[in-house]
Amino acid sequence: MNGAMTHDALLAAFAARLGTPGVLLDAADKAPYEVSARHGRGQARAVLRPASRDELAWVIEQLAAAGQAFVVQGAATGLVGAATPTEAGSQWVLSTQRLRDGLEIDPVNRSAVVAAGYRLSDLNRAAAEHGLCFPIDLGADPSLGGMVATNTGGARLIRYGGVRENLLAVEAVLLHPPGARVGSTRALRKNNTGLDWCQLLAGTLGAFAVLSRVTVKLHPVQRQAATALVAVESPAAAMALLGSVEQALGEFVSAFEGLSGPALSAAVGHLPDVPAPFAKAPAYAVLLEVSSAIGPGAGFDLEALLMAWLESQLDSGLVIDAVVDKPQRLWRIRHAVSESVQALGRLVAFDVAVSRSRFSAFRARALALIGAHVPEARVCDFGHLGDGGVHLNIVVPRETGDAAIQALRTAIYETVVHEFDGSFSAEHGIGPYNQAYHRRFTDRPTRALAGALHRHLDPAARLGNVRLD
Amino acid sequence: MNGAMTHDALLAAFAARLGTPGVLLDAADKAPYEVSARHGRGQARAVLRPASRDELAWVIEQLAAAGQAFVVQGAATGLVGAATPTEAGSQWVLSTQRLRDGLEIDPVNRSAVVAAGYRLSDLNRAAAEHGLCFPIDLGADPSLGGMVATNTGGARLIRYGGVRENLLAVEAVLLHPPGARVGSTRALRKNNTGLDWCQLLAGTLGAFAVLSRVTVKLHPVQRQAATALVAVESPAAAMALLGSVEQALGEFVSAFEGLSGPALSAAVGHLPDVPAPFAKAPAYAVLLEVSSAIGPGAGFDLEALLMAWLESQLDSGLVIDAVVDKPQRLWRIRHAVSESVQALGRLVAFDVAVSRSRFSAFRARALALIGAHVPEARVCDFGHLGDGGVHLNIVVPRETGDAAIQALRTAIYETVVHEFDGSFSAEHGIGPYNQAYHRRFTDRPTRALAGALHRHLDPAARLGNVRLD
Repeated sequence: MNGAMTHDALLAAFAARLGTPGVLLDAADKAPYEVSARHGRGQARAVLRPASRDELAWVIEQLAAAGQAFVVQGAATGLVGAATPTEAGSQWVLSTQRLRDGLEIDPVNRSAVVAAGYRLSDLNRAAAEHGLCFPIDLGADPSLGGMVATNTGGARLIRYGGVRENLLAVEAVLLHPPGARVGSTRALRKNNTGLDWCQLLAGTLGAFAVLSRVTVKLHPVQRQAATALVAVESPAAAMALLGSVEQALGEFVSAFEGLSGPALSAAVGHLPDVPAPFAKAPAYAVLLEVSSAIGPGAGFDLEALLMAWLESQLDSGLVIDAVVDKPQRLWRIRHAVSESVQALGRLVAFDVAVSRSRFSAFRARALALIGAHVPEARVCDFGHLGDGGVHLNIVVPRETGDAAIQALRTAIYETVVHEFDGSFSAEHGIGPYNQAYHRRFTDRPTRALAGALHRHLDPAARLGNVRLD
Repeated sequence: MNGAMTHDALLAAFAARLGTPGVLLDAADKAPYEVSARHGRGQARAVLRPASRDELAWVIEQLAAAGQAFVVQGAATGLVGAATPTEAGSQWVLSTQRLRDGLEIDPVNRSAVVAAGYRLSDLNRAAAEHGLCFPIDLGADPSLGGMVATNTGGARLIRYGGVRENLLAVEAVLLHPPGARVGSTRALRKNNTGLDWCQLLAGTLGAFAVLSRVTVKLHPVQRQAATALVAVESPAAAMALLGSVEQALGEFVSAFEGLSGPALSAAVGHLPDVPAPFAKAPAYAVLLEVSSAIGPGAGFDLEALLMAWLESQLDSGLVIDAVVDKPQRLWRIRHAVSESVQALGRLVAFDVAVSRSRFSAFRARALALIGAHVPEARVCDFGHLGDGGVHLNIVVPRETGDAAIQALRTAIYETVVHEFDGSFSAEHGIGPYNQAYHRRFTDRPTRALAGALHRHLDPAARLGNVRLD
């Protein structure tokens, strides 16, 4: 096959090898693959859905040989548009949805080898049979390939780390040489033998190769957990509380989520069966989780430990009020935040991070910027305080002009990057949606390095719609 | 300055900028920098010791501009010769020993920014003042730069991960453009903004750039610990025990070290004041540590938990005998293994790893290979069983021929890589000492990628003595 092959001939070849479920051509069939979870839609030339690693490598070989541009898509839960085709209609979508040829749990090694198309929930279901879990805790249910490409973080990173910290190996298919397979499924915790495809392909948004299988660490499941919703005076008080609980309850701390007063009110207001947790709405609150893989039979009780620590903090004045309740009840409030905020008006979201020691100062500065740019905005921020992650979500009147929002976005990003040594994309990664900011904030030698990698691995620039150079 | 500058002019420029302690020329002064910790010695043209990041960048700029070859050396504790100059005498040694311009602990963020020349013990001393530690536990006391370049693992990886999992940022100096500074000291746990120098420079043995500062996560110090030395019937029984203790004592498990009978005997024999721990010398033993950042005041006692679990295992027959003792007493035995084995004769060491589920089968296979190649060898293996790491150390008669040892080495590596999907260098990394095996076991696309990186970052091939292509 070569570059001169016609579109029809290519389609015929794909249909012959992948069968009917492997090639989607009708507008209605393609539509779900053309929508980005948060930002607009594109147009796919066709959707290709290989159902095995052999088919995947073969498809990539054909596309590369024919000089075709394509974007790889997992569960399409990403928030920066990296998996959505452009509007031009010239890109194929290569979906990994059917790439489910193997999900193997090794309980002795506490690891799993997973085809890229399986979802987080699939993996956790299989791991649970062995008393194990993959502890990346997210609102969405992404594919494993997408998780690795995006290096997802989530709410329990404070205890377990993110994807990179739990990745043992990746297997991928290259565009150049077309269809070449690299990497491995070696489930090794120690392996220092030079360059590792893991490190290059985790968090680079599929810019360099197509993931086919990933090998991850598993952890023992939690056998007890206790949670508290804690009212504090300010974000600074929340951060002081974090230091205190880490020193007192150490490795048991598994989540420390910040909720601004407005975010908490919005979430509680959104859940008709949930009463207000506090007599007086607090300025800031924290959802604190402690958990352990050790069952209650071992002789310690996490809820009792948590209560004792909370009482000492009430005495010290750092805690204004606290509710200890079942984890699922308190997490329900936390998980309702995003949706409840969106129901209030037009959502403008910022996914930023700073070091924990600069969180409070950054938040104050960000609130001032928001007030100056869009005075009518309601700030309903929440975040993974344990990791310095801030979802600075605001609601603006629907008539707010795009230019004002754009100016605010640039001001927030400039501030977080240049004044606070922070990140303008903490969890969501880089896609067409924030590519211009990547270019603005990434220095020349780093972009030059990315360019060398792009040229080496995809010399004709056919892969995806993210450029890191 | 340009490539035509003479050696004398270069030296004069270095002396003028770095001063007397910054340039070592006398044979006696250079000697300590020319010895590899395990393998032979080389010859340095001169030793350059910049004392600040500015001096470091300037030195690299001069060397690169003058087309000089150099090797970077931290504390020279590596075991594969990656930091030792070649015998040709044409390489400069760039020592980071005096690169100690800044060690900043951020207790709120639980992180540290550390100049590359500080040692692990320096960092832990500074962190301890805040109740924190950098939990990479090693026999040696390497520099932080060396630790990142080698991606060191150690004995507590089962709980904390290795260097990569605890690395937040790196700052480095490039050869091309000469003296360019890249990376950052952003102490962010969440930062998904594309390519990250961390990932490229951790574990690549200084092949691509020179580390100047590293930013790492810190953890709360351990406030209680309990250890047991456990006699078991076989390595397979040890691995079954690991599964059991992880399910029973979860996140408290912080070390699970395997000791073969001969390794244990050698260590105990080496310590005159230590009595034999067991009435009958076991075929295999495990040093198990449980620990917690939570003090005894919280109401649970790790030693009691460990004893209760051990009793249940004695009942089940998996444990033959067990000694619970103070951590420092049992670790002393474990740490005596290497030295005691070396005292028995000529040491031949293998630093390999397999998945935990294949450890027992691999060890049996390796023992058979050793018996076939060098029948007189005494196998005194030990390892980080929790991570699948095996230090397959053997003692051979001093008259054993090098060819027999070389053949055995190749056979062990072939077996671990091709039959057991393992690693031929689990912890020690790649250096001149095992470079040929890297070439043998690394596939073409991975080497081609490394080649693209070498060409981009060091087009004149002047940096170090490790090639990953």
